Amino acid sequence: MSTMTEARISKGAGPDGTDATKGGTQSPAPTYEGDFVLDEHLLLECGRTLAGPTLHYAVYGRLNTARDNAVLVCHALSGSAQVGAWWPEILAPGGLLSLENDCVICINMLGSCYGSTGPGSVDRETGEVYGPDFPLVSIRDNVRAQGRLLDSLGIRRLRLALGGSIGGMQALEWAIVHPERVERAVIIGVAPLPAMGLALSHLQRQAIQQDPEWAGGRYLPQRPPRRGLALARQIAMLSYKAAPLFDERFGRNPNRNGEDPWGLDDLGGGLVGGRFDIGGYLDHQGQRFVERFDANAYLAILRTMDTWNPQRGSSSATEAFGRIRARLSFVGISSDWLFPPEAVRHFAYTIRAAGVQADYREMDSSHGHDAFLAEQAELARLLR
Amino acid sequence: MSTMTEARISKGAGPDGTDATKGGTQSPAPTYEGDFVLDEHLLLECGRTLAGPTLHYAVYGRLNTARDNAVLVCHALSGSAQVGAWWPEILAPGGLLSLENDCVICINMLGSCYGSTGPGSVDRETGEVYGPDFPLVSIRDNVRAQGRLLDSLGIRRLRLALGGSIGGMQALEWAIVHPERVERAVIIGVAPLPAMGLALSHLQRQAIQQDPEWAGGRYLPQRPPRRGLALARQIAMLSYKAAPLFDERFGRNPNRNGEDPWGLDDLGGGLVGGRFDIGGYLDHQGQRFVERFDANAYLAILRTMDTWNPQRGSSSATEAFGRIRARLSFVGISSDWLFPPEAVRHFAYTIRAAGVQADYREMDSSHGHDAFLAEQAELARLLR
Repeated sequence: MSTMTEARISKGAGPDGTDATKGGTQSPAPTYEGDFVLDEHLLLECGRTLAGPTLHYAVYGRLNTARDNAVLVCHALSGSAQVGAWWPEILAPGGLLSLENDCVICINMLGSCYGSTGPGSVDRETGEVYGPDFPLVSIRDNVRAQGRLLDSLGIRRLRLALGGSIGGMQALEWAIVHPERVERAVIIGVAPLPAMGLALSHLQRQAIQQDPEWAGGRYLPQRPPRRGLALARQIAMLSYKAAPLFDERFGRNPNRNGEDPWGLDDLGGGLVGGRFDIGGYLDHQGQRFVERFDANAYLAILRTMDTWNPQRGSSSATEAFGRIRARLSFVGISSDWLFPPEAVRHFAYTIRAAGVQADYREMDSSHGHDAFLAEQAELARLLR
Repeated sequence: MSTMTEARISKGAGPDGTDATKGGTQSPAPTYEGDFVLDEHLLLECGRTLAGPTLHYAVYGRLNTARDNAVLVCHALSGSAQVGAWWPEILAPGGLLSLENDCVICINMLGSCYGSTGPGSVDRETGEVYGPDFPLVSIRDNVRAQGRLLDSLGIRRLRLALGGSIGGMQALEWAIVHPERVERAVIIGVAPLPAMGLALSHLQRQAIQQDPEWAGGRYLPQRPPRRGLALARQIAMLSYKAAPLFDERFGRNPNRNGEDPWGLDDLGGGLVGGRFDIGGYLDHQGQRFVERFDANAYLAILRTMDTWNPQRGSSSATEAFGRIRARLSFVGISSDWLFPPEAVRHFAYTIRAAGVQADYREMDSSHGHDAFLAEQAELARLLR
């Protein structure tokens, strides 16, 4: 089997950007990257607590003396605080944000494996690693903790909060939870997860939990449920991309390494049917993902995404959204089938009907949900 | 956990009908059901052979003396020869076919676990069960073997060959392989599988092969890879249904048995997050499927579907399709995302451009790919 992995690396491999290599655009380095430790218990919506959690964050550019140039970028499912690495064109000269004028902050979500407290962290109460016992940390819990971090930086008000996918959930939640602190919020490719999205999450959970190495979530660090996590990532990849793009890129071609779908190939575990090119691509994406992400963290953040519903507990949209003071912009992506543009538009109009300033824009892209990472220049144009 | 499984049984649970209960319409019984054994080796397109394979088939109604009333119905991925059980409204009075006038034949596909030779059969050459060594039997191989079976019944000509999904692949292939024997063919919700469909198959294969009980396909009959096969079925279910239907039926509701997605529930393997209703539904579908289907058979027929491309080996559409003499009708399903209606229409027009009589019709349905089973009366109306 020849190795053609390099040829598979393409722009925007998943809605987090960490897999993406952006040809031509240099990734800016953070001005500062560090940890903030909450000096108290974080009481969670689910009723449990996190004892003194850590938030890992990165800052790009500098806060001005008026402290009115802060921008919060919220990352997607498997992203990190290093927004410069996964959204370089948004931060590049001529992009949406300016590192000359803006102070851009990005905070790793709780539950993640990129520096903030998550399943791989030690529970300060018990002295044990959380593992599968890590509690459900909601989007709102995250945003409350993030508010404390910005307090510590002396940032009272955000000129802009923005994000795509689960990052957009956080941006909107900022406008709800901290109405006086957000001037504008941009919410990209997202609405409360529809039933099809909940279904996709359900499949991904099973893929991980059926792995022989899963061990109820108490897997050994050196023996993680690699195949299960890789399959979960592959399931997710389908929802991040659009079918016509797959047809264009892979079609019904046999795998580019020469395997024959009509014949048998030895892929290392005995003779099996040769793969089509799309199969080789998905396997490659799964392999890359398990090298950088943890299964318990993945499950934790999936749950954070699944449970988000800003109308939960409110008797009306007015009650849920009426307190928002920020100007909102919602962006739907024409080819997105995970969060279809109609659902994003409908969500925007529901919030507007609650008396909030909200507009809806649509990105015409063949890239599916992934477009906010794959077509950054286009996104910047739409939002400028 | 209360059991509400009965409430989950709904019309057309998968594109094969075997899971479907059709309220109100009685399933007609076959006039005859039996086996045909090919008295020679079947040389397969992949280069291997099947030694004296068996075709299990069912007949409904009776052949008339002119022998000109034969209709061949081809079943879908996990279906059986008992078309009366899964397409009762098509056979019912006022449906598309008439058991008074038509002689309806349905033949179980090779590779299946419903009576025809498949991975669970003994290879006559070796005396061993095929298991994972069962060869790739193409759609064309199936249709050639089916031709021999119809020879044995004295049926020279079909007034109609029809089927949905992989059944539609067979119906079209009949018109190609046996041009003088088919008067009309109806091909429903199908075209060569696009890249997204190949991707879905790739995920399903992994789900099965990652099951701890898989054992390289040599699993014990009493210990099949149940969880893997159930997950494969769930992945497939997403592609058989349409997102708006899921929203309408399940939305973001918690599982109807009272589980709480925000809390923890004991589902038998320790405390885990409660499921949404769509999760409970998918689990139920997976469980029902593993009670009736075999993992190796599932993999065999997936491969039969994946590899189908009637233009393979031809230098042009005219060469591939020009020999067809039957009138063809293609049916696209408006909400089908596995075989999108545009792809079915495009396929029909490609064949028409090769000089074949072919029309395209569209079923307006919210049921997705599954509509040819879920809305049989509507389908019959469209085709009459």
